[in-house]
Amino acid sequence: MNKINVVIWNEFRHEKTKEKARALYPNGLHATIKGYLDKNEDMEITLAALDDPDQGLSDERLQNTDVLVWWGHMAHDEVDSVLVKKIRDRVWEGKMGFIALHSAHMARPFCAIVGTEGVLSCGRNQKEIMWTLMPSHEISAGIPDHFLIEEEELYAEPFHIPEPDELVFGAWFEDGHILRAGAGFRRGAGKIFYFQPGHETCPSFHNPYVLRVIENAIRWVRPCEQVSPVKNACTWMHQPIVEEFKST
Amino acid sequence: MNKINVVIWNEFRHEKTKEKARALYPNGLHATIKGYLDKNEDMEITLAALDDPDQGLSDERLQNTDVLVWWGHMAHDEVDSVLVKKIRDRVWEGKMGFIALHSAHMARPFCAIVGTEGVLSCGRNQKEIMWTLMPSHEISAGIPDHFLIEEEELYAEPFHIPEPDELVFGAWFEDGHILRAGAGFRRGAGKIFYFQPGHETCPSFHNPYVLRVIENAIRWVRPCEQVSPVKNACTWMHQPIVEEFKST
Amino acid sequence: MNKINVVIWNEFRHEKTKEKARALYPNGLHATIKGYLDKNEDMEITLAALDDPDQGLSDERLQNTDVLVWWGHMAHDEVDSVLVKKIRDRVWEGKMGFIALHSAHMARPFCAIVGTEGVLSCGRNQKEIMWTLMPSHEISAGIPDHFLIEEEELYAEPFHIPEPDELVFGAWFEDGHILRAGAGFRRGAGKIFYFQPGHETCPSFHNPYVLRVIENAIRWVRPCEQVSPVKNACTWMHQPIVEEFKST
Amino acid sequence: MNKINVVIWNEFRHEKTKEKARALYPNGLHATIKGYLDKNEDMEITLAALDDPDQGLSDERLQNTDVLVWWGHMAHDEVDSVLVKKIRDRVWEGKMGFIALHSAHMARPFCAIVGTEGVLSCGRNQKEIMWTLMPSHEISAGIPDHFLIEEEELYAEPFHIPEPDELVFGAWFEDGHILRAGAGFRRGAGKIFYFQPGHETCPSFHNPYVLRVIENAIRWVRPCEQVSPVKNACTWMHQPIVEEFKST
Repeated sequence: MNKINVVIWNEFRHEKTKEKARALYPNGLHATIKGYLDKNEDMEITLAALDDPDQGLSDERLQNTDVLVWWGHMAHDEVDSVLVKKIRDRVWEGKMGFIALHSAHMARPFCAIVGTEGVLSCGRNQKEIMWTLMPSHEISAGIPDHFLIEEEELYAEPFHIPEPDELVFGAWFEDGHILRAGAGFRRGAGKIFYFQPGHETCPSFHNPYVLRVIENAIRWVRPCEQVSPVKNACTWMHQPIVEEFKST
Repeated sequence: MNKINVVIWNEFRHEKTKEKARALYPNGLHATIKGYLDKNEDMEITLAALDDPDQGLSDERLQNTDVLVWWGHMAHDEVDSVLVKKIRDRVWEGKMGFIALHSAHMARPFCAIVGTEGVLSCGRNQKEIMWTLMPSHEISAGIPDHFLIEEEELYAEPFHIPEPDELVFGAWFEDGHILRAGAGFRRGAGKIFYFQPGHETCPSFHNPYVLRVIENAIRWVRPCEQVSPVKNACTWMHQPIVEEFKST
Repeated sequence: MNKINVVIWNEFRHEKTKEKARALYPNGLHATIKGYLDKNEDMEITLAALDDPDQGLSDERLQNTDVLVWWGHMAHDEVDSVLVKKIRDRVWEGKMGFIALHSAHMARPFCAIVGTEGVLSCGRNQKEIMWTLMPSHEISAGIPDHFLIEEEELYAEPFHIPEPDELVFGAWFEDGHILRAGAGFRRGAGKIFYFQPGHETCPSFHNPYVLRVIENAIRWVRPCEQVSPVKNACTWMHQPIVEEFKST
Repeated sequence: MNKINVVIWNEFRHEKTKEKARALYPNGLHATIKGYLDKNEDMEITLAALDDPDQGLSDERLQNTDVLVWWGHMAHDEVDSVLVKKIRDRVWEGKMGFIALHSAHMARPFCAIVGTEGVLSCGRNQKEIMWTLMPSHEISAGIPDHFLIEEEELYAEPFHIPEPDELVFGAWFEDGHILRAGAGFRRGAGKIFYFQPGHETCPSFHNPYVLRVIENAIRWVRPCEQVSPVKNACTWMHQPIVEEFKST
């Protein structure tokens, strides 16, 4: 089996300017996630950032990416529209899976792929408890029925995403809120996963369960073997499909 | 439009033996719910209890019931197996909707209809906040994005129900738990709704939002007009369905 | 109960230029649908067309529309982008339901609301049989388990819409194809329904079952009573929600 | 990674008594499926039959089974009730996946696990075309957007199963029918897949695509790593979950 080519894309600005973020993630949070994932022999992990040439995703690189993990926050608007469309199409065509972390609920590629503006409520950092709602799901493999996140930014309902196709995790927050915190979506021939933990001033990407969820999600969103290419335009069927089989 | 014939079935034992339950619901919690619902001109509400003749549901009565609301707790096992099957079949055939309140997550009719044993975690009475997850749903009409329930019994995940077809409400509990608290299911031609508030020592059935949810749910689970009778056994198609249309 | 303000929007060009379309729908297919729906005392039906001033939907009119029914085909691209965004937002905010008929699977408002490009396979007009997959659904009320559509344009899988939240109808086509032909979606606080029959050269909008589905769908997508306004932007929670209740 | 222990359970009577079934599947259809699957180094495949001791599934064997594939038809009622409950519980507890083939839509374990009586319409053998509805799904990996099954027994809607959690395949039949033909379900911590082809007088278990679907489904229903054991009864939470973390 070929390795899964994973690109972890990070806006990578907070870690350069915010002391607390730098202390937690000295080489960027994408590098921290990579450090955990590198043990997996079935994955090839590389990093990309907004301020890299081509915003980190040249055409060639994108065409070799099986799974794109995305973290962005204050610079969503700087992400190039043409790139956004390329990412969306690659996911819809079943050539690449997509994972949106934390504030990427409003990232342009996530919104374009699933069809949302990602509006939610937010608030001060606080205690969070993550609950597994689908113990049968590949993404909750190895995750207990609940685990603690000592400190996370409050992200809360109402969360105006489309109905999740697979609601894997729900979150409890100290201040009285809940969130559909881990949600799988399917669009075209592609799979998408959103996962809420990961504020830049919180140590969530050092939490082994959060990291395991990301690891599981990479395997889940990974493209399946596609035999019939996904069409980009409506196709006129010139002969009855029943006829088609007559010659076989 | 004909009135909706609603039967509110209550185990009706706690209110006779437990002082706190009697104080809150002197004529039974079913009577309290009826008191609120009676204002609806499109509903005809009657009461039934476990210790009534025929456990409150003679064949004749059942055949005239459009929506069956069910509350049971300590005497689930006393409910007659034959009656359970009649209820299940009536729901599956699309002739009656079913609403399970609170501890009815383990009531025999609910388990038979949706296919579950209804296992969850529970604990002491505490503060609960109910969150609306589907603002587009008929059952959340008139309900704000969240409301407080001052005191309710803790009911929490893991909740081993089948995946809800429509997850309308989620609950936050003081002690660190969440619950998929308001869930719609479809089985055969019938609709079912489970709603978690309603412990016998808590005033939830005096809460106007809880009552409004029950009111909305009655209209939602109400049977739709059925043209093709739901079959109870597999049917052999003697001629191609395409032929059937030749004579029309 | 207030009447449901329904606007049936039609591209309304084929009926002016194509003899067969004109013969079937002399005043436009929207007028034919209106003729059937006018019997409903709970609905106020009006018509709009692409070539009307403001493309038929001035701000004032849109703000008074509860349900927008949409038929478009060859002129999707002419629909104004600003109008598309207004329609999408009104649906997401739960103020208006949306019904997409036939070739509106690629209409700009439908694509913007549910997040799709609506790609499918198509082919020559042929015999279709519509099958009810959800007999419990409000939209299939009064519809038999199957009905014949003598002649319809082939619309077939693969249909790259997001996973339907509610798959009400499936279609069989003579040439060997199937389609997820009647599909409900929820986005934000709004409801959307897509229904496949309705090619301009086919008499589908004279078929009583097709018309009944549209009638049912209008009642289903109709906005529910909204208490909490749907937010257009993320909201910062300045105090714990638990505190909020202390003053009540 | 440990091998997946797969047991293919077959009623195994038709192949002994019906000439056409014997000709197609001389050692039983389960042996034919095993012949195809044996190439997979990650699977250990064994066979079981109704007339074996313990109906083929002793306690010890069941406890070592990761995936149970089931084919039954005329002798559903002979399957032992105690065994049925053991199978159901093992699936709900996330220890075993379950695949129901063809006429197993009415098999007692399938009905107990998903909560259905499995009623559908059926008819003469005919041409079937299988359509992939979820190209993103693990179970459709390597399957084209459609494939022909030259001859299969008609199985058709209305099919009164619970709403599928994942509707992977839809079928077209020559006589004018469709079926939700490949459907995934989740119950408790377990996964279940139903797949319609496989009548005993049809060569479907020699069709490479049908076999590939079964192979994919084995990997999909395979239990995930479970950390928190699934409870068989409601659990009282003696202390706030938030307290639980204080000692960690």
